[in-house]
Parts: sequence; structure tokens; C-alpha cells
Amino acid sequence: MKVDIIISADDISESKIENKVVVVIDMFRATSVIITALNNKCKEVIPYLTIEETLEHAKKLNRESYILGGERRAVKIEGFDLSNSPLEYTQERVENKTVLMTTTNGTRTLTKSTTAKKILIAAMINAKTVAKRLIEINDDVVIINAGTNGNFSMDDYICGGYIINEMLKSNKDLQLTDIAKTASMVYEGHKDILSYVKEATHYSVMKSLELEKDIEYCIRKSIIDVVPEYYDGKIILK
Amino acid sequence: MKVDIIISADDISESKIENKVVVVIDMFRATSVIITALNNKCKEVIPYLTIEETLEHAKKLNRESYILGGERRAVKIEGFDLSNSPLEYTQERVENKTVLMTTTNGTRTLTKSTTAKKILIAAMINAKTVAKRLIEINDDVVIINAGTNGNFSMDDYICGGYIINEMLKSNKDLQLTDIAKTASMVYEGHKDILSYVKEATHYSVMKSLELEKDIEYCIRKSIIDVVPEYYDGKIILK
Repeated sequence: MKVDIIISADDISESKIENKVVVVIDMFRATSVIITALNNKCKEVIPYLTIEETLEHAKKLNRESYILGGERRAVKIEGFDLSNSPLEYTQERVENKTVLMTTTNGTRTLTKSTTAKKILIAAMINAKTVAKRLIEINDDVVIINAGTNGNFSMDDYICGGYIINEMLKSNKDLQLTDIAKTASMVYEGHKDILSYVKEATHYSVMKSLELEKDIEYCIRKSIIDVVPEYYDGKIILK
Repeated sequence: MKVDIIISADDISESKIENKVVVVIDMFRATSVIITALNNKCKEVIPYLTIEETLEHAKKLNRESYILGGERRAVKIEGFDLSNSPLEYTQERVENKTVLMTTTNGTRTLTKSTTAKKILIAAMINAKTVAKRLIEINDDVVIINAGTNGNFSMDDYICGGYIINEMLKSNKDLQLTDIAKTASMVYEGHKDILSYVKEATHYSVMKSLELEKDIEYCIRKSIIDVVPEYYDGKIILK
């Protein structure tokens, strides 16, 4: 069982992910939102690349049946119901609804990963359950860090390291590539996630937008035990 | 002064390196060979992508004036004078000679970097002097890890981290990207290079070929104070 990491959406190539089980991470904050919304019983999350596509799809639905969510430059989109803060996706807001979502890095990563055998959605908040699922599937894994605008993002990277370390507890014989091994070592050296993540560019951006509560939530470890899956254009619990 | 890292030759793009000062690292072993050969007073090192090109160029030269060096799959090339072991590039062998060299990852990285403003050659063995030179130049830096067959290589990565940490001693205000910051932290956590590098895929390959002496040499810190530069197809001391 091999485990590799791709460090940003820009670095995804078909040859790297074809027939692999892919784990998409955008912990600040798209995948944390998706996991939270599905855990709070939304029906499905449909990710879109553009605001226009999102609104186009919305037109076809009953206004009561969906929530418009997402961000541009980490800020709520005008006319949308919710921003990209996972704390807003409460059961009260999302239960039984379709979440139509557009985010920059996370959505781009998902749409570029469709040649994979299976696409799972991960963040710190569901990492243990993701690791358990991967061990059960027992197939080669590629963890894809959404990154930020095509660049490596410390937050997504340490999250991958945490998932790998959880997998190693069940299977000591994982074959890790050098980049996966390093992520695992980075996590080992920074189990207090904040000690590492506070150096991240993404963290500074969120701090400057006063999103400390989102940060606090997103770095909590394994508080949710669902593993969303991206399938046929939708993210659901299978 | 910004510092970024590109993690493999496959990830080099013009937009990332244009007008930047580039530092190429392939510490196991191409750049360690180049630095050692120039320190031992060879006239120049000319890197080639293929064995054919190397031999083609050699035909034009007096047999006494050059050394044929390089590797394929880490092994000496048939008919060549020297392998890719820096220990073979002694003053006795290389003084005043042109080294015609073909290696897989290192040469590919150099030939893909030509749109940079300046291309310096680094490894553990000359890291401090490289850092000093970069601080003097005082321009944006992109450290390019040759990597292994297009993949991230732990050895090149920690070497970049070491250079960055040496730069930070003179300039605390470097603007590090997340990937550069992580390399610096990996080095901080593994100043005994072997504790990290022994996990590298590349290290296992070298061990299996009984190249322990090369490993020992290549991980020595800052034992050489020259900084080779790739300019107009040749690597020289400017």
C-alpha cells in the first residue's frame, strides 16, 4: 500500500492519480465546511468553480431546498447565504438541504481529480475516520493538498501528515514517498498543530480577516466521524 | 527578499524562475561532484542530458584535456572515466581539465532553469558560502531541488532548509513561502542530517549500491567555499 502526496492543485497530473484512491484536503476551510455540513445532515454538497455556474444551478431549484455557500479571497460572496466558515453550517441551517458551494482552491482540486478511482474529503476534523477508511480500502493512496493559488500550503500538508500517522498505527508497512514521509515527520514534530500552522501564509490571511474562531475549529483533531465522497459531481456520505 | 523552493525538476515553470536567482541542488550526487571538481581546480564542468551528446562534444577535444563523468541509475557509464562519486574528482584527476558530465536529475534541472537571472550550484558541502553569496546578491531566490525522477527528494529538501537557515543568520526578514519555511523547520529539527536523510528513497538506493562513503561525504556541512555558476552552457567559478 503506497502513500504519496501532491502538494497543490497545480501539480495534479492524470498519471499520478489514475486508479488511485485520492484524499482531497483544503482544511482552511473548504473541506472543513463540507465535512461539517454533511455531518450536520445536509443532503449533499455540490462544488462549482465559478459563481455564475453556482447561480445557474440554483435557478433550477426550489429556493427552500438549497444553501448558497463559498468565498472569494476568503470572504463571503455577495448575495450568498453563507461564507466559507464551517461554523455557519449548523444543522439548523443545512439539514436536508443541498449546499451549492464555490471556493477557489478546494473546488479546483476536486474537479481536477476526477480520473481517480475514489475521491474522499478530509480535514483535521475527520482525519482519524479517513485514515481508518483508507486502511479498509487497502489500495494505493494519493493525498492531494489543495494548497493556495497553486502553492504548497503548510496547513494542508500537516493534515496529510496526521492522516498518514493514523494509518501507520494500523499498518506499519505503508510505502511512503519522500514527500509523504516528510509530512509524517512534520506532524510528529508538531502534534500541537498550531505551533506549525501559525507560520502558514494562509493562517496570516485568516488572522487578518479575524477568522480566529474558524482556525480554532479547523485545527481540532478528529471530532467528526464521517468521510464525504465526491462522486458524479456531488459530495455525499456513501 | 523572497525565498521559494521548487521541489523537483518536473515542477520548474518559467513564471516561477524568470528573473530570479536560482540555486540548483542535487546533493546525491551531481552538485556535490560539480562543487568538488571545481574546488579541485578543474577548468569547467559541462553538463549534458544524454550520453550521445557528451561523447559528441568529446570528439572535438584533445583526449588529454577532458574527463568523462556521470551516471545512469547511479552507476558509472561504460567507457567513461569517472562515475558520479565526488570522491573520484580529486585534484590529481581533474586539475585544468574540462569535465564533460551527464547525470539524470541534476542536468535536467540545469537545462530547465536557463530563464533565471543567475544559476548557482549548491549542496551541503558548500551551503554556507552559497547562503553568503545569496545575501550579497540580495535578490529574490528560488531554490530548485533536482529531486529524483520528477519526485520530491528528502536529501535535496533538507539541504535547501540548511541554506535558508544560514541566510536567516544574516537577514531575519527573509520572506519565506510555506514550502521554504517548512524546509527550514525540517532542518531545525534534524541538524544531524543523517537522522532525516536515512529515510530518503535516494539514500536506500545508494546504500544498496554500497555508496556509504559518498553519503558520508555529501552530508558534510560547508567544507568547501566555492560557489559554481552555470552560465552559457558551462559551470565555472566566476
